[in-house]
Amino acid sequence: MEIAQAPATHRLQPGAPSQEDIDRYRALSANAAAGAAVVATSARGRDYAATVTGWLPVSYDPPTMLVSLYGESRIGEAVSTSRFWTLSLLTRGQQGIANWLASPGTPLEGLMTQVPFRRGEVSSAPVIDRALAFFELETVATHPAATHLLVVGEVRAMGTLASGRDVLDPLVHFGSAYHRLSR
Amino acid sequence: MEIAQAPATHRLQPGAPSQEDIDRYRALSANAAAGAAVVATSARGRDYAATVTGWLPVSYDPPTMLVSLYGESRIGEAVSTSRFWTLSLLTRGQQGIANWLASPGTPLEGLMTQVPFRRGEVSSAPVIDRALAFFELETVATHPAATHLLVVGEVRAMGTLASGRDVLDPLVHFGSAYHRLSR
Repeated sequence: MEIAQAPATHRLQPGAPSQEDIDRYRALSANAAAGAAVVATSARGRDYAATVTGWLPVSYDPPTMLVSLYGESRIGEAVSTSRFWTLSLLTRGQQGIANWLASPGTPLEGLMTQVPFRRGEVSSAPVIDRALAFFELETVATHPAATHLLVVGEVRAMGTLASGRDVLDPLVHFGSAYHRLSR
Repeated sequence: MEIAQAPATHRLQPGAPSQEDIDRYRALSANAAAGAAVVATSARGRDYAATVTGWLPVSYDPPTMLVSLYGESRIGEAVSTSRFWTLSLLTRGQQGIANWLASPGTPLEGLMTQVPFRRGEVSSAPVIDRALAFFELETVATHPAATHLLVVGEVRAMGTLASGRDVLDPLVHFGSAYHRLSR
């Protein structure tokens, strides 16, 4: 076995992190490869939607998923106070939608006018057309975690809207950019 | 805008899912692209480690991450009852390690004898050599979610052990197989 490089470990103290701690963590955690998805909900007559990489299938029994949302964000407030929400997993061809719904300054009015979507049968929330898979979820728990809320939901409806080669072509985020899988 | 296909929505009732519900959910949730990582801890003089795709960076302030583990598993029991644990993000060249540590029948003795690793400075838990990034975490919360435990940890140490082209080459899981990113 080869001699390992000396590890360059950066330590953090419990309590408030320094700016350097945060900057280094941002850079290191950007190494998390993750599928891009859109989380959406409808509340008080409006649609809310945002691109997320912080989501997970959690359990098969019952089918349960999780999304991690910044607590102070509109989408965080909307999802955590709604009964139902959706996750639409994006394909590589949907990078434009991912970019649009990840913009910090997305408008509250007209957010979805140029995004092709339908309404979930159970949730009435937006489900992105051509999604690799979609899930309609009912919140069963919400847990604060630092600046974020972990919203746990049970699947009430699901399906796929992708076809052809799109079904093999997820949109993947890694290192602050979008990528596709190698064929 | 083109006419969308009729959605093929599969509905689930609250309560115990049917076998068909679970089978369909397994297939649809396999569309979650995710970076492969190794979660590890040391407890009672033993090392525990397992390949996971259910993990997330959660927050920058303070740096916080989450791992989702089957509650009845050895690794779930070990991580949820230990103070410290590690996440090592794998590169494409580490698929052999990912396969080994994902095997249902991994032995308790000799689990790590063929896995190159070092011990975290803070946690004393295994950190996989050449990891794209590693994080040593201290548990701050544990939340049951269906069959799983969501273990939330604050980062106490972190770094990278990868070099050269490995830093651009995460190991990605999608559709029940490992993949690399397109260049």
